[in-house]
Amino acid sequence: MKFSIERAALLKAVSQAQSVVERRNTIPILANVLMSAEGDSVSFKATDLDIEVIDTTPAQVERAGGTTVNAVLFHEIVRKLPDGALVQISEDQAAGRLTVIAGRSHFQLATLGKEDFPVMASSDYDANFVCDAPVLRRLFDKTRFAISTEETRYYLNGVYMHVADGEEGRSLRCVATDGHRLARVDAPLPEGAENMPGVIVPRKTVGELRKLLEDDEAQIAVSVSETKIRFATKDITLTSKVIDGTFPDYARVIPTSNSRKLEVDAADFARAVDRVATVSSERSRAVKLSLDEDRLTLSVNAPDSGNAEEELAVAYADEKLEIGFNAKYLQEIASQVDRENAVFLFNNAGDPTLMREGDDRSAVYVVMPMRV
Amino acid sequence: MKFSIERAALLKAVSQAQSVVERRNTIPILANVLMSAEGDSVSFKATDLDIEVIDTTPAQVERAGGTTVNAVLFHEIVRKLPDGALVQISEDQAAGRLTVIAGRSHFQLATLGKEDFPVMASSDYDANFVCDAPVLRRLFDKTRFAISTEETRYYLNGVYMHVADGEEGRSLRCVATDGHRLARVDAPLPEGAENMPGVIVPRKTVGELRKLLEDDEAQIAVSVSETKIRFATKDITLTSKVIDGTFPDYARVIPTSNSRKLEVDAADFARAVDRVATVSSERSRAVKLSLDEDRLTLSVNAPDSGNAEEELAVAYADEKLEIGFNAKYLQEIASQVDRENAVFLFNNAGDPTLMREGDDRSAVYVVMPMRV
Repeated sequence: MKFSIERAALLKAVSQAQSVVERRNTIPILANVLMSAEGDSVSFKATDLDIEVIDTTPAQVERAGGTTVNAVLFHEIVRKLPDGALVQISEDQAAGRLTVIAGRSHFQLATLGKEDFPVMASSDYDANFVCDAPVLRRLFDKTRFAISTEETRYYLNGVYMHVADGEEGRSLRCVATDGHRLARVDAPLPEGAENMPGVIVPRKTVGELRKLLEDDEAQIAVSVSETKIRFATKDITLTSKVIDGTFPDYARVIPTSNSRKLEVDAADFARAVDRVATVSSERSRAVKLSLDEDRLTLSVNAPDSGNAEEELAVAYADEKLEIGFNAKYLQEIASQVDRENAVFLFNNAGDPTLMREGDDRSAVYVVMPMRV
Repeated sequence: MKFSIERAALLKAVSQAQSVVERRNTIPILANVLMSAEGDSVSFKATDLDIEVIDTTPAQVERAGGTTVNAVLFHEIVRKLPDGALVQISEDQAAGRLTVIAGRSHFQLATLGKEDFPVMASSDYDANFVCDAPVLRRLFDKTRFAISTEETRYYLNGVYMHVADGEEGRSLRCVATDGHRLARVDAPLPEGAENMPGVIVPRKTVGELRKLLEDDEAQIAVSVSETKIRFATKDITLTSKVIDGTFPDYARVIPTSNSRKLEVDAADFARAVDRVATVSSERSRAVKLSLDEDRLTLSVNAPDSGNAEEELAVAYADEKLEIGFNAKYLQEIASQVDRENAVFLFNNAGDPTLMREGDDRSAVYVVMPMRV
């Protein structure tokens, strides 16, 4: 194998691949990236056995072939090469070395044979559809904060993506919950997604996927089977196993008859919650919301350090209510609001509370109260 | 005590004070900041028993007095208040509470009586002089990287500031070393500093002092005794104990007869060292310098991962030499060079090497070689 490539293009391709590599590996080859040169392009492939990323980029290929080198080390070297440098990469199979030359820098890296690099079993996909990057971005960005970190509830360690009847018709829906809060976001169902099985996309996959969605113009080809999901742009293909479990029946926990409506500026609300929560040093900071006619008072009482109170002008016309929440949960939910106003719908102090963004019905958030 | 103050001024004053406070304290009041209002200003004082910072700022004082509150909490609250807010602060001595009001935010914080706040014993200073901020900044910035972190060699855990005969006459000199490398930087001796006793300024004090030196126009009043050093600007007074120990006779380790001269672009050199060092994952990465006529080759050999080599065009006219150094030490020393060129003076592969910045004689660096 022998090819040359501009440093910026190389860095971009290697960056995406190496981020999938787990830092601690018991299997040496899993620390490596597989590079393959053929035709007029080079591909870089990395895997942690659950996720596989392949990033392909144009290069001047002199001799086709492929090998694997340590992904983190190779990425570090490319990162430190001078901007604009032309990088020449060649393999000396006999010596088991990869040579990297850029300007007057000269590296020789240990390789492991490409034949030992794990291959992810191919899959027949049940549904194939195309989605604009901003649509997928919204679905995952607005739900991922609610993913559970409890390993014992592994079926909550991801975003449940499935087809559902939304308030605006058949929808591509993402849901995440950790039992304390829940996020449910809908997008119009793309053509070809009708027969998609519901899948739980793991947290790490969501993080890696996010990097494919930065470009507003990008179109993402999505393929889904019972066991795998694949996202592909022109250059990058991300294939991931999905979580082998059953996502709970989330519909039951979304209240439908909450009628006490509070409308509040989302940014003001988040900042006020942050301020009053300062006085409490506990991990689960409880904030009390006291609602009266067009007035919301946020308060925190921490016996050791003091107390804090802040008043906000809001729209609220129902009877008085006092209800407590985890400050972090309130802030995270409020920060999902893109438009000005967050609309909260309460029932009673012990019941789950619902939040919407203004009059947008496509995203719904639920948060459980806590005693204060 | 009762006063009001603009949020930005309050934040600035509290920031400097709270950074001195140790995060873990067995003595509760050491976690607090002492605020005292009198006349038309408020002062904030914090200490860790070794360093004391007092920051004074104008305020509208309605009722003089003073109390102490948790420094980190108070700082967090002020930081989160809206920009431009007018902050009203008042003490309710009977309730042991400090009230902080800004707009519709309302905080009540637990206080501890000011009479329990530790007072640093006053000191008679042997020397008082004034120094421009950029001068002090240079003295400490160019030496602090070499401060030892070995607690057993406590007398190396700071910068040794003293009066010495420099290459350009009587000088205010700073020296730091950890036994592996040494930095010695001189500045013209300020008037009044002649009788200054040599003192070892602790690492933490150097860090706190650094914040006083950001303003190029600032003049710093320095006072020194055998046991204490004080730095004061118009608003801030930083008093610190000095390390009770004897700084070793550093002059002996500075080579005087090294004659093999290498001149190299400092930035290019640092970047090249960084690049070749990438292949070694060891903590103490050894880089080999091979010198030949006007050519420097940097190389690293790491049996497990590979090897790296880079050539630099340099000015070198002496006989061939091979010498090894810790990569981190080389980079840190090269990054002290403000002008273009670093001048290295070698003797042999086993001897300490000297570095200067171009033809500037006021700063000298020494680095010990390592076997490669």
